[in-house]
Amino acid sequence: MLSQRYISGFKSLRIKLLRTFSSKMPKVATATGNQLKRLRDCMLDTKLVPQPLHAYIVPSADSHGSEYLAECDKRRAFISGFTGSAGTAIITQDHACLWTDGRYFLQATEEMDTHWTLMREGLPTTPKQATWLCQTLSTGSVVGVDPNLLSYNTWMPFKDQLESAGHKLIPVEKNLVDLVWDDKPSVACNPVVPLPLKFSGKSIKDKLTDIRSQMHEKNASLLVLTFLDEIAWFLNMRGSDIEYNPVFFSFVIIGEKEFTIFIDAKKFTPEVEAHLKTEADGEKFHIKDYNQIKTTLKDQLADLQGRVWICQDANYSLSSLVSSKIAVRENTPIQLMKAIKNPVEIQGMRNAHIKDAAALCCYFAWLEKNVSSGQITEISGADKLEQFRGMQEDFRGPSFDTISSVGPHGAIIHYKPTKDSDVPIRSDCIYLCDSGGQYRDGTTDVTRTLHFGTPTDYEKECFTRVLKGQIKLGTSIFPSKIRGNYLDSFARQYLWEVGLDYSHGTGHGIGAYLNVHEGPIEVSWRTTKEDPGLDVGMFISNEPGFYENGSFGIRIEDIVQIVPAQTKHNFNNRGFLTFETVTLVPIQTKMMMVDMLTTAEVEHINGYHQKCRDVVGPLLEKQGHKEAKEWLWRETEPICK
Amino acid sequence: MLSQRYISGFKSLRIKLLRTFSSKMPKVATATGNQLKRLRDCMLDTKLVPQPLHAYIVPSADSHGSEYLAECDKRRAFISGFTGSAGTAIITQDHACLWTDGRYFLQATEEMDTHWTLMREGLPTTPKQATWLCQTLSTGSVVGVDPNLLSYNTWMPFKDQLESAGHKLIPVEKNLVDLVWDDKPSVACNPVVPLPLKFSGKSIKDKLTDIRSQMHEKNASLLVLTFLDEIAWFLNMRGSDIEYNPVFFSFVIIGEKEFTIFIDAKKFTPEVEAHLKTEADGEKFHIKDYNQIKTTLKDQLADLQGRVWICQDANYSLSSLVSSKIAVRENTPIQLMKAIKNPVEIQGMRNAHIKDAAALCCYFAWLEKNVSSGQITEISGADKLEQFRGMQEDFRGPSFDTISSVGPHGAIIHYKPTKDSDVPIRSDCIYLCDSGGQYRDGTTDVTRTLHFGTPTDYEKECFTRVLKGQIKLGTSIFPSKIRGNYLDSFARQYLWEVGLDYSHGTGHGIGAYLNVHEGPIEVSWRTTKEDPGLDVGMFISNEPGFYENGSFGIRIEDIVQIVPAQTKHNFNNRGFLTFETVTLVPIQTKMMMVDMLTTAEVEHINGYHQKCRDVVGPLLEKQGHKEAKEWLWRETEPICK
Repeated sequence: MLSQRYISGFKSLRIKLLRTFSSKMPKVATATGNQLKRLRDCMLDTKLVPQPLHAYIVPSADSHGSEYLAECDKRRAFISGFTGSAGTAIITQDHACLWTDGRYFLQATEEMDTHWTLMREGLPTTPKQATWLCQTLSTGSVVGVDPNLLSYNTWMPFKDQLESAGHKLIPVEKNLVDLVWDDKPSVACNPVVPLPLKFSGKSIKDKLTDIRSQMHEKNASLLVLTFLDEIAWFLNMRGSDIEYNPVFFSFVIIGEKEFTIFIDAKKFTPEVEAHLKTEADGEKFHIKDYNQIKTTLKDQLADLQGRVWICQDANYSLSSLVSSKIAVRENTPIQLMKAIKNPVEIQGMRNAHIKDAAALCCYFAWLEKNVSSGQITEISGADKLEQFRGMQEDFRGPSFDTISSVGPHGAIIHYKPTKDSDVPIRSDCIYLCDSGGQYRDGTTDVTRTLHFGTPTDYEKECFTRVLKGQIKLGTSIFPSKIRGNYLDSFARQYLWEVGLDYSHGTGHGIGAYLNVHEGPIEVSWRTTKEDPGLDVGMFISNEPGFYENGSFGIRIEDIVQIVPAQTKHNFNNRGFLTFETVTLVPIQTKMMMVDMLTTAEVEHINGYHQKCRDVVGPLLEKQGHKEAKEWLWRETEPICK
Repeated sequence: MLSQRYISGFKSLRIKLLRTFSSKMPKVATATGNQLKRLRDCMLDTKLVPQPLHAYIVPSADSHGSEYLAECDKRRAFISGFTGSAGTAIITQDHACLWTDGRYFLQATEEMDTHWTLMREGLPTTPKQATWLCQTLSTGSVVGVDPNLLSYNTWMPFKDQLESAGHKLIPVEKNLVDLVWDDKPSVACNPVVPLPLKFSGKSIKDKLTDIRSQMHEKNASLLVLTFLDEIAWFLNMRGSDIEYNPVFFSFVIIGEKEFTIFIDAKKFTPEVEAHLKTEADGEKFHIKDYNQIKTTLKDQLADLQGRVWICQDANYSLSSLVSSKIAVRENTPIQLMKAIKNPVEIQGMRNAHIKDAAALCCYFAWLEKNVSSGQITEISGADKLEQFRGMQEDFRGPSFDTISSVGPHGAIIHYKPTKDSDVPIRSDCIYLCDSGGQYRDGTTDVTRTLHFGTPTDYEKECFTRVLKGQIKLGTSIFPSKIRGNYLDSFARQYLWEVGLDYSHGTGHGIGAYLNVHEGPIEVSWRTTKEDPGLDVGMFISNEPGFYENGSFGIRIEDIVQIVPAQTKHNFNNRGFLTFETVTLVPIQTKMMMVDMLTTAEVEHINGYHQKCRDVVGPLLEKQGHKEAKEWLWRETEPICK
């Protein structure tokens, strides 16, 4: 599944296409007048804010920089009525403005009432938020925001820009939206469970040793963890406070001789306590309430020798406690340690992908048999797929909203079928299915594009160009530690040849029974200076695509593991790497224009399909999925030029 | 020829190899004791410096950010004795340190006397200059530097780092090295000549209109030009104040209603005056002395409405006159205008490359015939090549030091034969020749790698892999305005396949009868945020290579023009581009392993060679170069699989 952050440039077709294709009625906008009035009162109430605010910013964020938000954190959706995943609201006494990108222009227009002005991000005529504030506010204005919801790296330039125009940006610790959100969902407090060593592969104590060794290199006496997947990885525990992400609300501070977990006491069950004691194996730790993080950090800073390592993307509320003189504002050491899977995690990831392949074979076989009934829809199909995944060992749920999309819906890159948009899966157009599972041994993410009837030549040509790019990237050999950005054009070249392309990145990191999108690596046109480059033991997606607006979408997505390449030479002792595909689901040969493939590509495809038979076949057999196995054999018949 | 700034990672083999290969004696180090003592006295003399200096920095730079330095600007070489192209000296009362990179470790060791400490840049144990100053100086120290020799973008972080450690960085306008450099060469004051419209393609007045339109967009009332090639381009004039670069020392300030040229009065001949009057066509301009730039800029700033556009890389002395409140610190509009050649420049560039190809055919034919004599050396060969270029119309001189290198010398990426290193060109090893010419209609830069005997299979394999990459990049189709970085892996992939690579970028921009290295575009692993991406009308080099230390070097370099690609589709209306190779010199087929080439590659090579015959053949014929024409025909015999 595509990471939200690297999609760009495509047109806002979602609502328009839904209408055209499903001819459902648009929604009624959410009334926001009352809550906006109350919020504006709060902005002026000096019992609630340090000083009266001329503007209040409501980001889409939680205190942990999470990609997905828990219900209780969807404050921007509540205050504005707009439910899309990306957007920022700014409220003054006279204005209520909502910035969002092209994907959501129509949806926002429909969902927001007349109190709101849509600020179309990405259009040259739309001012950026800070610029708009500078243009709109009288000199000397005060802008407030919950400092838990902006990262340090976002806060600082925003503040600079406001200050250079004579305004102030101030932290307002009491969240004003919460004060006017009467039926706000409570913070999730779902159970936390240990992840046994047979899945994690490395004890807390051993991870601690590695982390402290890196802290030592930076002369850091404290390391503050705020990202939920980093904490879950470090503690070998999993939760379910955020949908699809097996994480739990918490903070951690690691010192030189002890570490402290900040977590709701209700989650600290005897089972968790026993797990921590066993795995910490003599290392000292404390449990404190989730809300004590700031006071504890302040206390620890008071008599500190050495520096404090806190990621530049940690929230400003915590980050600002650490003076820049002693701060190491870099990615935590955990980010890279987590990206490079250990041998147990590698085995688990590979195993999870075999089980996942079995579930997908069952689903596609079932679909092929039943699609002609006309009764299976995008949603009921996705549900069936989840049922098949549920039959697999250690399945814990989907790793993201299944993108089950028919015809033109496939061209909406982040399509998720809703009751309003749901349509039957048909045999006269392309079906794109992007889905993944959370298993205790690994996380999966796979996209296959199928046609249950007869694809057009144009569809086949586009599919084949996407496939050639996917093979080219997947079989490439490259020096160790180069950034994925450097390989992205390999996946696009066959589309470029005829003037085609796709408006999203080609690969994202993936967690081991953790978040389906995981930094710090990626394969895309973007470069980030924090990207450490590709290395052995990392897993990344390989998912080029092509989208014909209003007509169809094609994407082929595998998860690949980075492994050493066996090369004759080794220039400058850099070490050369390649990918090994761990996704084992047939790629529909019906969609291929075999004449466009080289002999090497044909051999690659046949080899891959043979591996699907060899590895997934026995599991299907063992599980008694006879029809799925037959489907697998049919779909993996060798092709020849 | 490779741009200095994007070579990295290769070992310092220059001196070592020279010894091994030519067995000449090392040089004697330059005595610097006297001049260092005098410089240290100057540092403390408050008649010369605003306050006593604890450290003085001597960069390798001029006031214009030039890549090549005039003799009078080689201050760092004078003070330290080290003559390499890259390096920075820092002198305190107790220390004299010279920072340079791995290419020059041995050379610096040999050239510098015992007063100097070599700081080996790039080694993890070597502190960076500012860090070393912070570690070495007592708190409250004063560091001085000539502000004309550091760019604004270099100065600011340097100053921040020193200040955060309690020191000061101060500008010292009087250059202290000049005060102790008794036989300093005088500033070149070579004639300046107009470049007629038939070569420039666009009058000063028309350029001015475009420049002012971009100034207007930025609300800039003044534009300060400090880069010599930008000034030469704007004024349609050429000079020779710096070797190989047809530029002249000058500054320009463009206002809304007039522009001012700061230049030595001796250069302002009646011919230049007439040229300016004609081409300015009524636009008002003034001539002032070169040294009046600062006082004039101050005066103009005094009563200014609007902002001042000055490149972030302009020298600090000038840049600091412009307060950041009104400064537009971005690349000047000229940089991109100059990179996108106009139709006359395009025609000129293509024509220059045809003439250049004729000269190279003459040289290689002559070499092939005479190499067996054993009398032709790297230097005498290069001289002969210059003679052949000199026979071509409008030739003005080489565009850089010819890299004429035999065997292991070819593995030294920036090799230039000297009297000490010069060896005969032989038929038992590879000969790499990277050279270029300045013609009034264009600048050329071409590398060919030849063997006059029988290459080994390994040499042929490496050559063929380099060639395949060069063809792949040269024939690629890509969306308009993507950065060249994005295409770099195309050129490397066939080397990567077997664990090989090269430690330099793949392409640099090139001027039209201007500098052989020209920003802002490039094809390399680096990305710069100022890179505007590739666009129609740009020219860039395509020069992958491979270097086997101690043995041989291979590089194949063409200049390519960016042209629209004829694609069936046009995704998102981006426009798709490709390259057209304008260099027309045969690539030695003897060096190719034909079995490693695809049919398409063989056809491409044969097509290219046919074009060499068709275009260069008639010119050779016309010029009466019979042997060269025969050589051209022999070298362009079609190959077949």
